[in-house]
Amino acid sequence: MKRLAVTHLRSQTRRFSTKPGSEWETWAKTATQASWSPYAAGGVAVALAAYLILPGSSKDHAVKHTPKSLAESQFDKFAKPFNPSSSSGLATEAKAATDNSNDIETPMRERMSTFVRKMQNKIVENLDKLEMQAAQELGVTPKLFVRDEWVRKEGGVGLSCVLQEGNVFEKAGVLVSVVHGPASANLIKQMRARKKEGVSDESGVYHMFAAGCSMVLHPHNPNAPTAHLNYRYFELVKEGEEKPVAAWFGGGCDLTPSYLFEEDAVQFHRVIKDVCDKHDTEYYPKFKKWCDEYFYIPHRHETRGVGGIFFDDLEHGDHNNLFKFVEECGLSFVDQYVPIMQRRWNAPFSAEMKRWQQLRRGRYVEFNLVYDRGTKFGLVTPGARIESIMCSLPLTARWEYMHEPAEGSKEAELIKVLQKPREWVV
Amino acid sequence: MKRLAVTHLRSQTRRFSTKPGSEWETWAKTATQASWSPYAAGGVAVALAAYLILPGSSKDHAVKHTPKSLAESQFDKFAKPFNPSSSSGLATEAKAATDNSNDIETPMRERMSTFVRKMQNKIVENLDKLEMQAAQELGVTPKLFVRDEWVRKEGGVGLSCVLQEGNVFEKAGVLVSVVHGPASANLIKQMRARKKEGVSDESGVYHMFAAGCSMVLHPHNPNAPTAHLNYRYFELVKEGEEKPVAAWFGGGCDLTPSYLFEEDAVQFHRVIKDVCDKHDTEYYPKFKKWCDEYFYIPHRHETRGVGGIFFDDLEHGDHNNLFKFVEECGLSFVDQYVPIMQRRWNAPFSAEMKRWQQLRRGRYVEFNLVYDRGTKFGLVTPGARIESIMCSLPLTARWEYMHEPAEGSKEAELIKVLQKPREWVV
Repeated sequence: MKRLAVTHLRSQTRRFSTKPGSEWETWAKTATQASWSPYAAGGVAVALAAYLILPGSSKDHAVKHTPKSLAESQFDKFAKPFNPSSSSGLATEAKAATDNSNDIETPMRERMSTFVRKMQNKIVENLDKLEMQAAQELGVTPKLFVRDEWVRKEGGVGLSCVLQEGNVFEKAGVLVSVVHGPASANLIKQMRARKKEGVSDESGVYHMFAAGCSMVLHPHNPNAPTAHLNYRYFELVKEGEEKPVAAWFGGGCDLTPSYLFEEDAVQFHRVIKDVCDKHDTEYYPKFKKWCDEYFYIPHRHETRGVGGIFFDDLEHGDHNNLFKFVEECGLSFVDQYVPIMQRRWNAPFSAEMKRWQQLRRGRYVEFNLVYDRGTKFGLVTPGARIESIMCSLPLTARWEYMHEPAEGSKEAELIKVLQKPREWVV
Repeated sequence: MKRLAVTHLRSQTRRFSTKPGSEWETWAKTATQASWSPYAAGGVAVALAAYLILPGSSKDHAVKHTPKSLAESQFDKFAKPFNPSSSSGLATEAKAATDNSNDIETPMRERMSTFVRKMQNKIVENLDKLEMQAAQELGVTPKLFVRDEWVRKEGGVGLSCVLQEGNVFEKAGVLVSVVHGPASANLIKQMRARKKEGVSDESGVYHMFAAGCSMVLHPHNPNAPTAHLNYRYFELVKEGEEKPVAAWFGGGCDLTPSYLFEEDAVQFHRVIKDVCDKHDTEYYPKFKKWCDEYFYIPHRHETRGVGGIFFDDLEHGDHNNLFKFVEECGLSFVDQYVPIMQRRWNAPFSAEMKRWQQLRRGRYVEFNLVYDRGTKFGLVTPGARIESIMCSLPLTARWEYMHEPAEGSKEAELIKVLQKPREWVV
């Protein structure tokens, strides 16, 4: 059971050390042009780390010091594992220590790899600040995100930032992965929302590259909404060829309140609509509708939440423009969500409201396990990291038989909106 | 939101009335040759009923007084809804008021319809007794099962017996359904574990009949195991024909402990093995293995629990013998499980043990929503009753990132068994 505990412990304590860090750390610093401030938090995350020093449930994914098993490939430079004992590793870090995400000469793989880390860093930093502010108000010790690095045996690396049982969030995960490897026909099918002719033929051998950041935040307070975000980039390359046969962006963000506050829904949608409109005024209406359709739970006849945007298979026109769009979406999340949390994280609530939130969490689980393409994709990906896939699930959830809110109640008001999605901004 | 509350309230309060009852009640009485004792429980289930008088979440499935929308068909007599205002309904009841499950002249549909109610009645009665015993020991009011009848618009009826937040069980559901209707190609595919040539052709129009009882019991105490049971009978009939093109039995029972007590696993398996051996000594080893394979969670590399038996597509030989086998399996459940509960329901436990139980509940949810064929079958069945499908989910569940039990712990001991199923009886 206690596999590789030492390795994991090391990867987490490094979070709070002043020693020059891993490739991840270097990238993260570069990305925001600010150091990972240790928040003078030597012992802060100890309680939380108690969960995380228990090693991963799959031995294939634990951090390895000498990743000799990784096949050398054209993707490796974009997904190099942390390797503190290797001087060549440090050389790579130095090379990566510039923010190349806006350099159009840099391959898109590398730009996306940089961007997803930059986004992760920005989100984690702002949520940590929120937690510190909350802890100060409550007069308790803050519980900050804990970092957990992993290597995918089949090719790729990841950095998970997870917080459990904090003062603001019951569970929060901001996960980056940059993976590559052989792509089976089934995998290719699952990767795309819509089938496209000519992307692959049965005789060919394909490799895929995927860089993405996904995030789910489940607050404690039933007045505060759950938020989800995912921005990703895929390439499909035929063996022996350099140019991808397909390359596309996907992503989106959406809000799942247990209680409806119109101003929160409007805030969330307003910020992302402004980003969309800067790029193409058709984006927001199209992607807002796609979001409502995607996050629909057919067996409950309701959407998961009040929506946001969702898009996939984005590959039209100049990819520099698409990248810029995706980047601005991702980096705007903090403005979409943090102001909402500032007014909700400590709002008064009753035991009944908490119970209702738990029932809504149950719905969240139903959507993610039964319908979510990201989860399905994860479950069919060879060597996928199950802990990352399941990280989106709430810490706690509840199912009651035949529960239905009383007519005219706040709970019933939410359901009405979920049954008939509304336009929040025009 | 508050649809048909009166109807539901009536169907529940009838549970405790002395008025001559519905068709269900008549069948239930007949089946056990004992009356539904009211346990002098006029107000007993009030707290629990608070959940249940909230009407169903799908208006299509609420109990209807005048089920005129039901198509008359050859199946209707086996799945007649409760209809208190109809004298013809009473006539049907009178006709059904004999236990015909062992009459080989009676059509199998009717025998199974009787049997599933008989089994439901026996289980509910014994679990109510357990609850009353527990409540007496604790000096509190018992919370007994509440009955909830429903009509399937497309054809069929059901009787759900559900208990939430009792003294022994956190959530317990014993559900009977007898349904029929048009069978789509997709439905036929989902109905069977293995494809069989010649069962249906694309040009034909088919109807299905299904009678089953399914049960999931989630106790409060982490020392006490969750139990699941399902016995069912299907017929597929080509339109215009009388004899089914296919008819088969399926079912099984399995145990899901949070903590392993070998004597419990042995007890559960011993009883069902004895039943199997009476019919065919090849049954137990074959169905025990099938159970371990079926209740496997690939992404966790572990089984859901310590198994039991599982079988499907049972159609060989004389169906009277198959029926007898299924009937004896179902009726033996009380002997499999109640003795275990008697020694575990009130065993001491810590908060840590409760937390571990909640994590195991999370695994239960993962299996049921991602892999369970019963759930998938339900989700693709037109007009399926979602509250019955989701009734198998625990009241509460938990997911922690990277949780793994400490080496040598009781929790780790359970995982070892789930990773490598054991032979409990030989």
